[in-house]
Parts: sequence; C-alpha cells; structure tokens
Amino acid sequence: MLIDRLIERINSLRAPIVVGLDPRLSQMPGHLKEAAFSTHGKTPEAAAEIIWMFNQAIIDSVYDIVPAVKPQIAMYEQFGPAGLSCYFKTIAYAKAKGLIVIGDIKRGDIATTAEAYSDAHLGRADIDGEAAAISQTDFITVNPYMGYDSIEPYLSDCQKYDKGLFILVKTSNKSSKDIQDMQTAGGRPVYEHVGELVSEWGRGFVGKSGFSSIGAVVGATHPSEGNALRAMLPHTFFLVPGYGAQGGKAADLVGMLNKDGIGIIVNNSRGITGAYQSEKFKASEAEFAQAARAAALAMKEDLAQYM
Amino acid sequence: MLIDRLIERINSLRAPIVVGLDPRLSQMPGHLKEAAFSTHGKTPEAAAEIIWMFNQAIIDSVYDIVPAVKPQIAMYEQFGPAGLSCYFKTIAYAKAKGLIVIGDIKRGDIATTAEAYSDAHLGRADIDGEAAAISQTDFITVNPYMGYDSIEPYLSDCQKYDKGLFILVKTSNKSSKDIQDMQTAGGRPVYEHVGELVSEWGRGFVGKSGFSSIGAVVGATHPSEGNALRAMLPHTFFLVPGYGAQGGKAADLVGMLNKDGIGIIVNNSRGITGAYQSEKFKASEAEFAQAARAAALAMKEDLAQYM
Repeated sequence: MLIDRLIERINSLRAPIVVGLDPRLSQMPGHLKEAAFSTHGKTPEAAAEIIWMFNQAIIDSVYDIVPAVKPQIAMYEQFGPAGLSCYFKTIAYAKAKGLIVIGDIKRGDIATTAEAYSDAHLGRADIDGEAAAISQTDFITVNPYMGYDSIEPYLSDCQKYDKGLFILVKTSNKSSKDIQDMQTAGGRPVYEHVGELVSEWGRGFVGKSGFSSIGAVVGATHPSEGNALRAMLPHTFFLVPGYGAQGGKAADLVGMLNKDGIGIIVNNSRGITGAYQSEKFKASEAEFAQAARAAALAMKEDLAQYM
Repeated sequence: MLIDRLIERINSLRAPIVVGLDPRLSQMPGHLKEAAFSTHGKTPEAAAEIIWMFNQAIIDSVYDIVPAVKPQIAMYEQFGPAGLSCYFKTIAYAKAKGLIVIGDIKRGDIATTAEAYSDAHLGRADIDGEAAAISQTDFITVNPYMGYDSIEPYLSDCQKYDKGLFILVKTSNKSSKDIQDMQTAGGRPVYEHVGELVSEWGRGFVGKSGFSSIGAVVGATHPSEGNALRAMLPHTFFLVPGYGAQGGKAADLVGMLNKDGIGIIVNNSRGITGAYQSEKFKASEAEFAQAARAAALAMKEDLAQYM
C-alpha cells in the first residue's frame, strides 16, 4: 500500500519531509533565466524551460535525503500548456529518481468531472479504448467542499492503481477560519467533521502501518487543532504545510505524531528551493541546488530534535 | 461592469442560458473521431483535436442565441497539455464570437498560489516584466473552503481587468449535503454562511444592474435552498447547474429570480451539446450542431414559461 511505502521511506531516511516545488520566476537564478530568454524570448515556453532546469537540479540534489516532492500545479498552470507540460515532466523525473510525488492540485468537482481529473492525475485517460497515462503522481490533494461524490471517483483509482489522497481538512492559512472553523450545532468546528469524513472515506485504504492512503491536510500553523485531530483520527496521515515561511515550528508538530512518532510529512517549499537567497546558507546563485540540500538537511535536524 | 454586460445580453436574447462545453469523447460524432485518429492515432493530441472541431461547431451554432458558454476545464485537463491548449483555444474562439465565457475551474488555494491561478485565468502571467495573457476568460468558478485569503487574489484581478467569479455555495450534487448542509451553532447550514461571505466579498463589485460580478453557484436541484438564498442575497447573481440531466426543472428556478425576473444564468451541458443523441431531436451525427441549436431554443422556451 502506498502509505506504507511512504512511511518506510520517511523512517529509513529519518526525514518526514516533502520538498515543495512551487517555482516562482522571481526566485529563479539569473543564469537559468538568461539562457532560456535568449532562446525563447520572455514567453511562457521560456518560463517553463527555466522551471524545468531548476526542478531537475533541485531533485538531483535532494532525492537521496528526502522521501517525497510536492509540485504545486498552480505555479505551472500559470504558464499555460507549456507550464503544464513542465509539471508532468517534473513528476516523471522525480519518479525516475525514486521519489514519491504529491501533486498539489486541490481539485474538487463531481461525478464525471472528478473522474476526468482522476483519469489525468491518478489513473488513465481513455482515448477510444486506448489508455493514456497523463501523469504518474502518487498522491494528489483534493478539496472536500462538494462532499463524498466529489471524492469517490478518486477512491476508485486509488484502489486500482495504489494511489492516495490528501484531503483539505484544516489548512495553514489565516482565513482557513472563515469556513473551516465555523461552529456546528454539536459544538465542534466544521473541520473536525471533515476530518471524520476523511477517516471514514479512507477506511478501506489502511495499510500495515495502521495509516490510510487517504490522508488529510493539516496546517503546521494550528498546533492545538492538529493535536485534537491526531487524537480523533488515529489512522489518518497528515500532510502538513506551513512550516518555516508561514510560521509553523518543529516543536508545534509533536502533537500530530502518534506514540510511535509517526503520522506526518511536513512540507517546505521556499525554505528549501529558495535557500540560496537566505543569509543563513551563504550561497551564490550558481549554488542554488547545494543550498537546497543544506536546507533540507537543516530541516531534518530541526525536526529530529522533537521526533 | 462585467455582470451588467452579462445581464444585458441575457435580457436582449431572452435567454438566461449558458451552454456547458464539457466534451466527452464517447459523445463525439464518429466522423470527427475518425478524422483525428487517422492523423494522430489514439493520442491525447487526437482527443484535443476532436474536441476543438466539436466546440467550434457548437459555438458557431449557438453564439447568436445564448449569452455565454462554460467550458469545464477537467474535460480538457484530462488530456494533458494538448487538452489544456484546446481549452484556451475554445475560450478565445468563443470570445471572438462575442460570447461571455465562464471558465469552470473550481480552483481554490492561498496567497501566491491563488495569484498564480488568477494570473493564468483572469489576469496576466508575469514573465520577467513581460505580461503574458494566457486566457481570456470572463468569469471563473472558485472553491471557498480555504476562506477569504483564497479569494482575495482573484478579486484584485477582477477589479483590474473587469472580470468576475462564481463561488461555490450550494452545489447541485447529492453529496453537497455532507459539508454544505452541516448545521451551525446559529441554526443555519454552512452554505448560508458561505452565501453571506460571498455577498460581503462582492460588495465592491455591484454594477448598475444591482448585481455583483462576484456571484454564487447554486444548484437547480435544491429549489427551496435557492429561494432562501435569493431572499438573503439580493445582490448576488447565481450560476445554476443541474438543470435537465441532473433533474432540475424550469419551474424550480422561479424562486431564484428577483421581482424583475433577473438573477440567474442556467447551465446546460449534455442537454445541448449531446442533443443529437437524444430521441427528442431526431438528428444524425452529422447534424450535432443543428441539434444543439434546437436544444438551446427548446430550453429557452421551457424557461420562458416561468420567467
């Protein structure tokens, strides 16, 4: 089961870390930009080429020390078809290096529409009887606002292809309170009910590790909520955004682990891929990939104090 | 203001109708498939070519009788970059014919990520100082589960480029009850609170028509909920899915209109684009576009009985 493979890799590397690949052109090293702009001009194709060069170097420098990467599709989709092509190439490249890939797509739609998303990102597109593999993603993130029939099509493909989901429960951003924290008639916030739905939907996907391949997104910025969710959802693995740049600290994450110290994978995007821009790592632009490795190792140490 | 233009077109055509462009290969006419498969094989490129030929013919046959079309991006994304390219070409083609375009993308993410989606679908992608227009969509649908900071980046582009949103409030699918209908402590369901948030977020976008360019998605399958939302949200325009195939009837929609008979645009996808496969329209495969026009006119008549 996918979740068991993820947990094994986390344990053997002692790194509950996923490197977020959320490339922003403003953070790309100048030499990559110059090369692409001189060939393609300042076009979406150039942007995609820059990101592709950047991602390969990042993956090459971290694939042996972290278990997973998480490309954020918005950062690719903004450059249209060329960007999307780079997204899929990045996933294939990471998979070839042995990484587990979490596609951060946050899709949510119903019935045949969700099936189409699932075909693209987890399963196969059906082209008049020919099955086309569009993506090789392991997990995707999905949005639960439309309810079970917006989740069910993904579950079928998770079963068929040994894939997984991380469903938004309590997200790391400040305004997550607007809807997720609404108090329900029973006296509990909406996100706790959503957490229970996620646990229920994932019941058929629990592996030997005791965790389900159907996990939840729970922000590092809400430690007490995270602790409560862990107590309530012993079989639900958490994808945890919000560490570092958004203010989440390693000490805050302890309560999201079970008694064996398992239960989370923590995302870091800019803190790793943009490490060369940080004073802490004193790296030149040309050393962006080495700086990313140093930052991933520093994060591993930071987390190890508590886990 | 965009919403005023939409309402003017609805009124002058007497058709509160948006044609959903949700192409499924299984519903494409054989002659289009044969042509594309013989050139490209059974590939994503062939799928995109078939959909592109189909969409142009549908748009040509309805652009003078309906105000808007709504491509569902999942149906394009499933074929990867070739599919996405077809999605953007379809939008450009519809715009050139004078149609208003609602991109049904249901995106939802925070901060810089939402900005990236907004740049792609409403605004401009910034490529080292060059502004690239990736899409020409007028409205997009968005998912509110992450709260205001997942909406705000779109609002900036709506202001700057005169664009609009339809935010999911009460969707047409059966499981919309799972989260949207949860009773809150105040005794009202979650979706009513979300409706109020949408109204608040859209306050700065109210046009001469009295409606805001920041609208709500409210399913035709929930007439009493729709009536309650109309009473509560006098300035919020509704995009209404679920008519026809999903069971929503014209009579059910009356309560979603204001006293001047304004307030909704009703989506129909399969009922129009797949009309040639319905016994009602007795059309051959080659006549799919004419059948779509006949179905759009029949829908207009059906709605006119009540509006």
